[in-house]
Amino acid sequence: MINKIVLLVALILVYVSRNSSAVWASVGFGLIGYVFSDWLIPRVGDSFIKIGLFGKDLSKPGKPIIPETIGAVTATVYIFTMLFCIPFIFYKDMVVTTSGGGHRDISITENGTSNGSFFPHNKLSEFLSAVLCLQTTTMIGIADDLFDLRWRHKVFLPAIAAIPLLIVYYVDFGVTYVLVPNFLQKWVNGRTTVNLGSLYYVYMAAMSIFCPHSINILAGVNGLEVGESIVLGILAVFNDALYLLFGPEVSHESHKLSIIIIAPFIGVSYALWKWNRWPAKVFVGDTYCYFAGMVFAVVGILGHFSKTMLLIFVPQIINFLYSCPQLFHIVFCPRHRLPRFNEKDGLLYPSTADLVENPPKKFFIPILKLLGSLNLIRLEYVDNGKKDTIKSCTNMTLINLTLVWFGPMREDKLCNKILMINFIIGIIAILTRHLIGTLLFGTDNLRPITAF
Amino acid sequence: MINKIVLLVALILVYVSRNSSAVWASVGFGLIGYVFSDWLIPRVGDSFIKIGLFGKDLSKPGKPIIPETIGAVTATVYIFTMLFCIPFIFYKDMVVTTSGGGHRDISITENGTSNGSFFPHNKLSEFLSAVLCLQTTTMIGIADDLFDLRWRHKVFLPAIAAIPLLIVYYVDFGVTYVLVPNFLQKWVNGRTTVNLGSLYYVYMAAMSIFCPHSINILAGVNGLEVGESIVLGILAVFNDALYLLFGPEVSHESHKLSIIIIAPFIGVSYALWKWNRWPAKVFVGDTYCYFAGMVFAVVGILGHFSKTMLLIFVPQIINFLYSCPQLFHIVFCPRHRLPRFNEKDGLLYPSTADLVENPPKKFFIPILKLLGSLNLIRLEYVDNGKKDTIKSCTNMTLINLTLVWFGPMREDKLCNKILMINFIIGIIAILTRHLIGTLLFGTDNLRPITAF
Repeated sequence: MINKIVLLVALILVYVSRNSSAVWASVGFGLIGYVFSDWLIPRVGDSFIKIGLFGKDLSKPGKPIIPETIGAVTATVYIFTMLFCIPFIFYKDMVVTTSGGGHRDISITENGTSNGSFFPHNKLSEFLSAVLCLQTTTMIGIADDLFDLRWRHKVFLPAIAAIPLLIVYYVDFGVTYVLVPNFLQKWVNGRTTVNLGSLYYVYMAAMSIFCPHSINILAGVNGLEVGESIVLGILAVFNDALYLLFGPEVSHESHKLSIIIIAPFIGVSYALWKWNRWPAKVFVGDTYCYFAGMVFAVVGILGHFSKTMLLIFVPQIINFLYSCPQLFHIVFCPRHRLPRFNEKDGLLYPSTADLVENPPKKFFIPILKLLGSLNLIRLEYVDNGKKDTIKSCTNMTLINLTLVWFGPMREDKLCNKILMINFIIGIIAILTRHLIGTLLFGTDNLRPITAF
Repeated sequence: MINKIVLLVALILVYVSRNSSAVWASVGFGLIGYVFSDWLIPRVGDSFIKIGLFGKDLSKPGKPIIPETIGAVTATVYIFTMLFCIPFIFYKDMVVTTSGGGHRDISITENGTSNGSFFPHNKLSEFLSAVLCLQTTTMIGIADDLFDLRWRHKVFLPAIAAIPLLIVYYVDFGVTYVLVPNFLQKWVNGRTTVNLGSLYYVYMAAMSIFCPHSINILAGVNGLEVGESIVLGILAVFNDALYLLFGPEVSHESHKLSIIIIAPFIGVSYALWKWNRWPAKVFVGDTYCYFAGMVFAVVGILGHFSKTMLLIFVPQIINFLYSCPQLFHIVFCPRHRLPRFNEKDGLLYPSTADLVENPPKKFFIPILKLLGSLNLIRLEYVDNGKKDTIKSCTNMTLINLTLVWFGPMREDKLCNKILMINFIIGIIAILTRHLIGTLLFGTDNLRPITAF
């Protein structure tokens, strides 16, 4: 019943969008995507289990088996939604602006050569490259879920998916300089900008690698991957809304595109979250993590606010930096770093890495002890009277750190706490960026806010 | 060693293409795609078998198990190849024509508004929509191979994949009229063209549905799906070459795009064929059939020669029409219609449908008898002295018909014979189209040929 009302609202939005903004069409399709995903997910679970795509939920009594890789369904619904969405997003351009087909209004350039139509082919290229990139990422995710690709193979694959984006960026904008903060300008001979040239493309490729993997490593609790993706989506839309309300006219197109890409993403993700939250009926798989991370990389790159986008990834960046000692095998990294489930009280406890059999690199022991004294990790020492040999340390993930700080708790409480922290840090990051933008660069692109 | 030489040639072609035609880059990438597929396919087989993607080769002694769905590897390599190919295809436009980035050369239109850059965004949209469509088709194929989708679900899915194509067609060309042959003009008040309007889009969507499925139903012999796809590719390139050599200048862009899309396809398909031909080491799966069929639909639609493209599909169309009685359950259709393998002599014999337990629809019995007397099917009658009750008929596929006509033969011989028939029919179709184009329409777009 509720889903039928949602569908009705969606159809009204799509209809209304014809004469107003394409953003409403994408919100409408987001709702349609939500309803369809919500309908589809419970219906495909058995088929996934049948072909071996299932996993054990280790944090539940009896370790029940539930379908894995359901994120592939979500990603596919998203991509199909975006395909259906295209005619509505470009409705105005196709029907209103060009009176019924771009080909019919040929424009003549100054030197007399025909230069195509009034139809904004560059916007269409942007949109197609975004969908193409997300679909390639989804395929990489599915391959990983099916075949368990090795890290050294899969780590750089998202950059290949990003090629269409980088091409479109190159031909449409090609802006490769970055602003230099006031206090750093003396180091670069007083220049206010530095041209990074092709390094800027390396940076964007790196972003397309980082975002997917960063979501993938902050995972392991029912509902967390999807929840944080939704939080990131809301933060991004919040930032877009700030620009659309207070930002300069020239930035509006980018932020509209951002909402057009993110709104359907939030829709399908919310449906997935309903089935993945505690107690999970389905797992999302690597596919969803890659896909979700890439959504934000795409928006950041095509919207030219990749640096602002990285700001809302601060929790993921912190988690990545915090994980580095284990990711790069300076400290022993067990196969799983999920919190430990205690069947007796039903709570999650921080999991630990055994450092007796697998001692950490020598130079890192003092750092470990420092982290321990700062309460950024919990250490156990071998019981020989003096605290000199570390027996174990809690695994270095934000999830375990939350448990170290706030004590053992039930899985859903833990997930919600991390999501709340994520949201608060994100809001602070966005506001800080605009408030201190003036201090660092002498100007900010949201004038009315920084006018205070 | 040979592969290393091929790679070297490929790199030279890609390098040369910078100052000549993008077609050479795509041929180069086709060779790279060939080498990479050829390297990859034997290395992934075990992983596919491990996750349950394998099939029994029913036409071999002992019915060995070999990996299934390897076409997904081919399709993925193709898509990655195309992604890598983009910068080289648009190299001239990005670097030469626009002196280093489309954004730097803004053109001004007559009414004074800025109309974007000299960069051919419409060409980029075409290319991206093609890759997007093929990737969506591949995902549909993978879903079918993994989950064995029902016919009623999967039959229309390729049309969704074609949405980006239809959009690009709409905004770039929007031509929806068709020429009327001279002898039919009296039926339409003497008009030389008829505007099909939105029906033309229905026709293109139907083509995107027909091509993938038509390859899928002409299958079942080692190497046949891949072989016929390569034959179709060669025929399409032959047709393109005719246009590039003799056709009007205005058609050159379409036929270059056609070669750019098909050349890498032939490359990766040839690698797959090496492993799929008799005796097959791998099966290609539905994924490859869908993907291959869609390549031709894409080229036909974007190149505006969808009707010529359908001409080279004549064998597939004949196979489809011939199969209709069984596809629509007028005549009983067994689960498999593969030829029957005789272990004693190692030859394939036509397989049959038992019509005693599952009698055909009454009205069709005379037609069956007619087909039988025309040697278009082989009938067996119940042995009661008079030929009135049909006991069985050979299954209605081109494969079985070939065996009816030419007698039992070994699998590879059968495959080669069908491929040869396919090739000859295709060549005749293309030549006929240009030779009788003048008769039917009063003019043909290949003037020098029809001048005879």
